[in-house]
Amino acid sequence: MALDPFDELLEALRCLPGVGARSAQRMALELLERDRDGGSRLARALEQAMQQIRRCRQCRNFTAETDCRICRDDRRDSSVICAVESPADVLAIEQATEFSGRYFVLLGKLSPLDGIGPDDLGLDLLEDRLARPGVKELIIATNTTVEGEATAYYLSEMADRHGVQVTRLAQGVPLGGELEFTDRSTLAHAFASRRPLSG
Amino acid sequence: MALDPFDELLEALRCLPGVGARSAQRMALELLERDRDGGSRLARALEQAMQQIRRCRQCRNFTAETDCRICRDDRRDSSVICAVESPADVLAIEQATEFSGRYFVLLGKLSPLDGIGPDDLGLDLLEDRLARPGVKELIIATNTTVEGEATAYYLSEMADRHGVQVTRLAQGVPLGGELEFTDRSTLAHAFASRRPLSG
Repeated sequence: MALDPFDELLEALRCLPGVGARSAQRMALELLERDRDGGSRLARALEQAMQQIRRCRQCRNFTAETDCRICRDDRRDSSVICAVESPADVLAIEQATEFSGRYFVLLGKLSPLDGIGPDDLGLDLLEDRLARPGVKELIIATNTTVEGEATAYYLSEMADRHGVQVTRLAQGVPLGGELEFTDRSTLAHAFASRRPLSG
Repeated sequence: MALDPFDELLEALRCLPGVGARSAQRMALELLERDRDGGSRLARALEQAMQQIRRCRQCRNFTAETDCRICRDDRRDSSVICAVESPADVLAIEQATEFSGRYFVLLGKLSPLDGIGPDDLGLDLLEDRLARPGVKELIIATNTTVEGEATAYYLSEMADRHGVQVTRLAQGVPLGGELEFTDRSTLAHAFASRRPLSG
């Protein structure tokens, strides 16, 4: 028997991360009672996004075009490429920094145990870009996890082969963080990597 | 200029209760990266629910049919009607109790200050049902807020006019609640309404 439209909506809402049975019910009732226009708009936006959004052919970020907004922007500096694990990292860097170079989105990280190798991360595409004349710096902004570090090592070797300088985001105590509550490995790393104060 | 499909999705997701900019981003990326089928299914379910779900002509609960599942069920007892404020209350009572009577969903509460009068709550419909032969009990399950109490009073007068017995959900200390942390008015009410233990 087909589900009732209400139960079908409850079920379908649970594909959203962090939404369980109770929040699904709250969302469904809220839309039905107070915001049917919002619900219809969300239906169209989802349909459109799921159908149209693909990966940018240059940087592998999500986009509805062949090339994403950042890759299409001529004002951005093509001599610097920042490699990140996911589209969320691109958004975070765009929101927090003044970075005006290009990105490369791995959409994952090297993980031999899970069978994720260089081909799955589109590293041939990245290698093509590193081989282009004028590329000077590869900023590696993968996460500081074991797989992220392994990926960073692999990328740095690749950049070296093409004579491109490699940089990595600084690691240390977070701004506003209290030493007392900083985890041991971060503190040990920050201590060992201490830098002279320019006077 | 029309929004990019990704930004449009972020915007649209924010109509969901409790979803801000960051959760919208997390939801959009999760669906795009890992669950496009779920996203498309959600789009269809939303579209269908927003278009098809109306109010039941008997009890005013949400349904895609003319009469809701509960009103269509012949096995349920038509001599008892439980009046609640919202469809969420019907779901809560169905999940927690063995109640097998009928419901009436006010979809609001009397609130003269907000201009919500008896007509807005479809009380003429409820009066018609109370006037039918065979109706014995009206269970008032409105919230224990000021407006909920005012609504309860209005409903009980209406039931009295039709010779229907009125009951109200018991109020007191919640099960598993500790007296020390029970709010004063609940505790005062529970104390005054103490009942003899049947020995």
